[in-house]
Amino acid sequence: MLKLQRWLSRNQLFEQVVCKKAGHVDHAFGSHPFSSGVGIPGQKFTHTVPKNENDRVYAAYNVYKGKAGVSMFPCLPTFTKLESGSLVIDRRGSILLTFFPAIGERKYDWTKKQFFSLNPTEVGTLISLGPRDSCEFFHDPGMLSSTAGQVRKSLTIKAHADGNGYFISLNVVDNTQSTKEFLSVPFTAGEFSVMKTACSFALPHILGWDRLTKPSLGMEKGFQPNKVNREGLSLEWKR
Amino acid sequence: MLKLQRWLSRNQLFEQVVCKKAGHVDHAFGSHPFSSGVGIPGQKFTHTVPKNENDRVYAAYNVYKGKAGVSMFPCLPTFTKLESGSLVIDRRGSILLTFFPAIGERKYDWTKKQFFSLNPTEVGTLISLGPRDSCEFFHDPGMLSSTAGQVRKSLTIKAHADGNGYFISLNVVDNTQSTKEFLSVPFTAGEFSVMKTACSFALPHILGWDRLTKPSLGMEKGFQPNKVNREGLSLEWKR
Amino acid sequence: MLKLQRWLSRNQLFEQVVCKKAGHVDHAFGSHPFSSGVGIPGQKFTHTVPKNENDRVYAAYNVYKGKAGVSMFPCLPTFTKLESGSLVIDRRGSILLTFFPAIGERKYDWTKKQFFSLNPTEVGTLISLGPRDSCEFFHDPGMLSSTAGQVRKSLTIKAHADGNGYFISLNVVDNTQSTKEFLSVPFTAGEFSVMKTACSFALPHILGWDRLTKPSLGMEKGFQPNKVNREGLSLEWKR
Amino acid sequence: MLKLQRWLSRNQLFEQVVCKKAGHVDHAFGSHPFSSGVGIPGQKFTHTVPKNENDRVYAAYNVYKGKAGVSMFPCLPTFTKLESGSLVIDRRGSILLTFFPAIGERKYDWTKKQFFSLNPTEVGTLISLGPRDSCEFFHDPGMLSSTAGQVRKSLTIKAHADGNGYFISLNVVDNTQSTKEFLSVPFTAGEFSVMKTACSFALPHILGWDRLTKPSLGMEKGFQPNKVNREGLSLEWKR
Repeated sequence: MLKLQRWLSRNQLFEQVVCKKAGHVDHAFGSHPFSSGVGIPGQKFTHTVPKNENDRVYAAYNVYKGKAGVSMFPCLPTFTKLESGSLVIDRRGSILLTFFPAIGERKYDWTKKQFFSLNPTEVGTLISLGPRDSCEFFHDPGMLSSTAGQVRKSLTIKAHADGNGYFISLNVVDNTQSTKEFLSVPFTAGEFSVMKTACSFALPHILGWDRLTKPSLGMEKGFQPNKVNREGLSLEWKR
Repeated sequence: MLKLQRWLSRNQLFEQVVCKKAGHVDHAFGSHPFSSGVGIPGQKFTHTVPKNENDRVYAAYNVYKGKAGVSMFPCLPTFTKLESGSLVIDRRGSILLTFFPAIGERKYDWTKKQFFSLNPTEVGTLISLGPRDSCEFFHDPGMLSSTAGQVRKSLTIKAHADGNGYFISLNVVDNTQSTKEFLSVPFTAGEFSVMKTACSFALPHILGWDRLTKPSLGMEKGFQPNKVNREGLSLEWKR
Repeated sequence: MLKLQRWLSRNQLFEQVVCKKAGHVDHAFGSHPFSSGVGIPGQKFTHTVPKNENDRVYAAYNVYKGKAGVSMFPCLPTFTKLESGSLVIDRRGSILLTFFPAIGERKYDWTKKQFFSLNPTEVGTLISLGPRDSCEFFHDPGMLSSTAGQVRKSLTIKAHADGNGYFISLNVVDNTQSTKEFLSVPFTAGEFSVMKTACSFALPHILGWDRLTKPSLGMEKGFQPNKVNREGLSLEWKR
Repeated sequence: MLKLQRWLSRNQLFEQVVCKKAGHVDHAFGSHPFSSGVGIPGQKFTHTVPKNENDRVYAAYNVYKGKAGVSMFPCLPTFTKLESGSLVIDRRGSILLTFFPAIGERKYDWTKKQFFSLNPTEVGTLISLGPRDSCEFFHDPGMLSSTAGQVRKSLTIKAHADGNGYFISLNVVDNTQSTKEFLSVPFTAGEFSVMKTACSFALPHILGWDRLTKPSLGMEKGFQPNKVNREGLSLEWKR
C-alpha cells in the first residue's frame, strides 16, 4: 500500500523536480525563438536534461496567447530490465504542460513558468472532451510526504460557451512562498484539435504499449515483441 | 471445419493456460507496486512468461478501484514461416484483461485473479461503444472439447446511466470447483477513453496488419512488406 | 489523358489478375484453416504471390457468415526509384476484399471467390460511414480496354435499419461467361468497427505517407525522410 | 520578439520558395501521369528537390476535378543538433497543398500551380471540421518583410449545404503581377475523409512528436527516445 502511494507521489513530484532544474530561458524548448530579455542569456534551456542524456529531442507544441502561453510534449515511460531479461515499466509516461506568463507583446517570462504533468487517465479525459465539456484535475506535488499540502495545483479545461474552443488554466497555490499563480491560455478549436490528436498519438507511447509492438531501442541483444508461448499452448491442447 | 472450431477453442483455452501459469503476486505485472501481503513474496509474477522468452515487455494499463481492479495489455499474434519464406498468421492476437479482487484498502489478491481475452471483434465492439451503450461477451474456455460447459465466463461493459463512465464486470462460473466469481470495476469516462484509445492503437497490431507495413523482427534475411507483383501486372497489361 | 485513364484501368485490372492467379484453396490466406473439401488439396493458396516474392505476410481479417465470408487485407503501394535517387509512387495501394460463398456449415468454396479492390477514396468513404449510412462502388475491370463492359462489379455497404451493423455485398456480372454472382456478408457493429479501425490504420500506408515519415526498406544507402531544404530557405531569407 | 515574427514569416515564405523552384510539369509528383501537353516535356518535376537531397519520397494524395485539382503531402520538420547532442526542432512541418487549374478534359496546367502550406494548427482545424463546418485561413508570404502585402492568399474549406462534401478553394492575389487566381476543387465526403485521416496521421509527424518516440534517422551514435532522469528523481525522493 505504501508503495502504491509512493508511486503516485513520485509521479507528481516530477513536476517539482522539473521546476527546479529548468530555471533558464532559451529557444531550445520548442521551435519558437524567444526574446532573450528574460532569463539568463547565453544559457541553453535544460529542463530535465541531466548529464549523460545528451540525446533528447525537443519538439514541443506551443500555444502563445496574450496573457500566457503553454508548451506541451510527451515524457516516455522508463523501464527496468529484470534478471530474466524482461523489461518492466518503472514509471508511466505523461504529457508535460509548461505554462508561462506574458510580460509584454509576444514576450514571456520563463522564470515564472509552472508545470503540470498529465497522467494517462488525465490524458484520456482530455481527449474524450466534447466541444462543450469541461474537466478539472488536482495535483499535490508533496502528496503523502512531509510536504503534503504545501503546494496545490489545479488544471481546468473549460469549453467556451459557443463550443468553439477552450480555456486551459493552471492555478498554483504555494503556501511555502505565499504565492498564487493563475495562468490561463485560450485555445481555438483548431489548437485544441492539435492537442487532442497529438495526445491520442502519444497515449499508447506513454503507456509503453508501443514497446509491446515494436523493437526496443538500446537493447544489446536481439529483441522480439510480446508473444504467447505457442508450444505451451500446443502441449495444453494435446492433453 | 474441425480445424476452424479448434482454432476458436484454442483462443479461449488461452485464458485457462494463462491462469495456471500465473499464480503469483508481484509488482512486475504493471507499473503499480502491490502490497506483498498476498501471494508468494520474493517471487516474480510470471504469467505467460515461459523459459526462453526472456525478452518480454510488461506495460499493462491498470485500473484499481475499491472492490476490484483490472489490468490490460495486448498479446501479439504469432506467425508461422512457410517454406516459401512467407509468414502466415498462426494465432490472432488479443487484449488480455486480468481482474483481481480487493481484500482491503489498496490491497488486491492476485491468487484470485481471473482472465478474459478479447478477440479482435470484441475489441472492435468495445471501441465502438457510445457513452450510453453496453455489450456482453460469453466465453467457454473448454468449448468443443471434453471440458465444454465446465467453466463459463461473461464480460459485461455497461454504461452508467448518466453516460459518464462504465462498469466492466467479469462473471466466472466454474462447475468443476463449484465456484462463482464476480469482479466489477467502475471506469470513469477518462479511464474508458484510455482503454478505447489504447485498444484502437493495438487492434491493427493484434490483427497482424502492422507486419504488412513494417519490417519484421527477428527475420534473418532482408524483408520487404506486402507488395503487388508489378511485372505480372505489366505483362497482363500488354496483352 | 490516356495515361490517366490507363492508370485507372490498371487499378481495376488488378482484381482480374488476382483472380486468375488465386485459383487454389488453402489455409494460408487468413488465420482460419478451411476444410480441404473444396479446391485443390495439398496446394498452397498463392493469390498474388509470384515467384521471388517469398517474403509476404498473410494476416487478413476474415468474417465468416452463413451464406458467404469475406477476407480483407491491405496491398501496399509500389515505388519507382528515379535516377536522382528519389522514390516516386508508382501504383497506389488498396484494401483487397475477397468474397467466397458458403457451401455448407462453416464450409466455403474458394474456387468461387470474387475480388474487389478498394482504392484510397473508397476506403475514405467506408471509414466515414455513420451507423445509418450506405454507399455503393462500381468497378469495370476492363475499363477503357477492349474488354470494357464485359465484367461489371458493384460493392454495396448498407446499414441495418436499426443502425447496429451493415450488409456488405458484392455483385459480379460476367457477360463473357454469362454468370451472375451475389455474395453478401452481414457485419455486426463490432466487425464493422474492426474493419473501419484497420482501414483507418492502413489508409496512410496505402497512400504511401508512411514512407514520407519512416526509413525505407530495402534501400542500400542511408535514407532520410522527406525534408525541406533549409539552406535554400536561409538563402531566400537573406535576400 | 523579432525572432518569433521571423519564424512565422519563414513558414509562409516557404510557399514562395517552393513556387519558384517548381516550374515544371511531370508525372513524378503523384501517382497520376499527366498529359505532357503543358510544361516542359522530358523534364522531371523537381519541386523542393534541391541537389544532395536525392532521397525524397513522392507520394502525394491527389484529387482531380473538372476545373482544377489539388495535391497534398506532408513536409516533415527539420531539427538542429546542439553541442550537447540533443535535437531541437528548427522548423515545424506542414501539409503542402498544390492547386492547379484544368485546361481541358483531364488536362492540368502545372505552370499555373499555387501553393498553400497548412501549419499544425490549421491542420488541427481541418481535421476537426464537422460535415457542415467551414473555415478560412489567410497567408501573406511576405509577412513582416519588405514584400508584406504584395501577395495575399486565402484558403477556404466550405461544407456543401447537404453536408455531403466540401469545396476547397484557394484565392491568390498577387499585386506585383496584378494577377488574381481562384482555384476551387469539390471534395466528396470520401475524398475529405482521406484528407482528414491522412492529415491526422501526419500531424504528430509534422509536430516532430514521432521523434520523441522513435529512433532517429541518420544519427551516427545510438540514440534513445525522450526519457526522464530516474536517478535525479530518486535522489530527490531520498531527501
